[in-house]
Amino acid sequence: MIRGKFIALEGGEGAGKSTQARLLADALRSRGETCVITREPGGTAGAEAIRGLLLGTEGEGWHPRAEALLFAAARSDHVERLIVPALARGDWVICDRFVDSSRAYQGGGGGLSDAEVLELHQIGSGGLLPDLTLLIEVAPEIVTQRLAARDGDQADRIGGRDASYHAAVAAAFRRFAEAEPGRFARIDGNGSAEVVHAAVMAALGPVLP
Amino acid sequence: MIRGKFIALEGGEGAGKSTQARLLADALRSRGETCVITREPGGTAGAEAIRGLLLGTEGEGWHPRAEALLFAAARSDHVERLIVPALARGDWVICDRFVDSSRAYQGGGGGLSDAEVLELHQIGSGGLLPDLTLLIEVAPEIVTQRLAARDGDQADRIGGRDASYHAAVAAAFRRFAEAEPGRFARIDGNGSAEVVHAAVMAALGPVLP
Repeated sequence: MIRGKFIALEGGEGAGKSTQARLLADALRSRGETCVITREPGGTAGAEAIRGLLLGTEGEGWHPRAEALLFAAARSDHVERLIVPALARGDWVICDRFVDSSRAYQGGGGGLSDAEVLELHQIGSGGLLPDLTLLIEVAPEIVTQRLAARDGDQADRIGGRDASYHAAVAAAFRRFAEAEPGRFARIDGNGSAEVVHAAVMAALGPVLP
Repeated sequence: MIRGKFIALEGGEGAGKSTQARLLADALRSRGETCVITREPGGTAGAEAIRGLLLGTEGEGWHPRAEALLFAAARSDHVERLIVPALARGDWVICDRFVDSSRAYQGGGGGLSDAEVLELHQIGSGGLLPDLTLLIEVAPEIVTQRLAARDGDQADRIGGRDASYHAAVAAAFRRFAEAEPGRFARIDGNGSAEVVHAAVMAALGPVLP
């Protein structure tokens, strides 16, 4: 069976993940590859409905354990209905955030252990991991500039979280990358989109056809 | 700390669970107890929103693993926001379906192991179990009569499932009750609502104040 490659992009808000996902897909398509670009939470009709519950709840919102279960449910639908079928066809799947975001956000400050987040992923999605996880790392002051340049609504949503929260998430991602150097590539995301894209393509070397 | 009692009613469709929940709450209130009647999936704003996703999805619906995660997420919100605070106040909580329904429905024919369903409950809700689980057991031919007497919409939704499905669910509930005789009381649900209610009150003996 021909099997496609599964690439995830991870990192904090404002790291440039969705821009790099687009540039990567363009580069792969220009080499004749078929690519599916997708994102989490979301990517399928069911998972997008759960995304609406996760991001749109008025009032008190979700406590960490219910939130982690909802992310795992969305991921389970996404893996079963989009990612696995695309990989089975031999397509590339480029995903903006995957399970390592749950580990960093729900497992980090959210009150769940890393083992619990991984157990939810095992039960929901058979523990599927990307062939390569691109961790895009950007200095805090550059993130602040980029988020300020976005539209007001998005800057507001991020503005509610303090610098120590962002630092804890960044530190969690770094720990995951150090623990699994074969699955992660750490990308310096401080430069222009083109410079970062060149680093992404260099990191992709081992999985390129 | 005064702690209330947590009573769950379990059994197949048409077993009379919601009727018995109401009669039980009336009887406890007439003894001066404070009761919260609730149901699953649902019981809180968040869990009812998840219930809407679970029961209202058009098209292909959820595959078993995403469904089990959504039930666990709804239960986590319900336990955290309604059940545990009510028990901490010293109220009785009477719940129409709880984790044993997930074990029977998602774990039975749904492709998850019982251990996986229980692990989701451990992560989401700390493994909280009722003080007493009333399993209301009704002969298949009586269930068929009761469901036929309900309004057309509900009969249709149940009609899509065959007799062997209902038999497998009933067998799963029976196994759980046999494995934990201290937590379960098996109630003969074939008689009139009043006769079944008398059996419920008799079974409640050990937890009545």
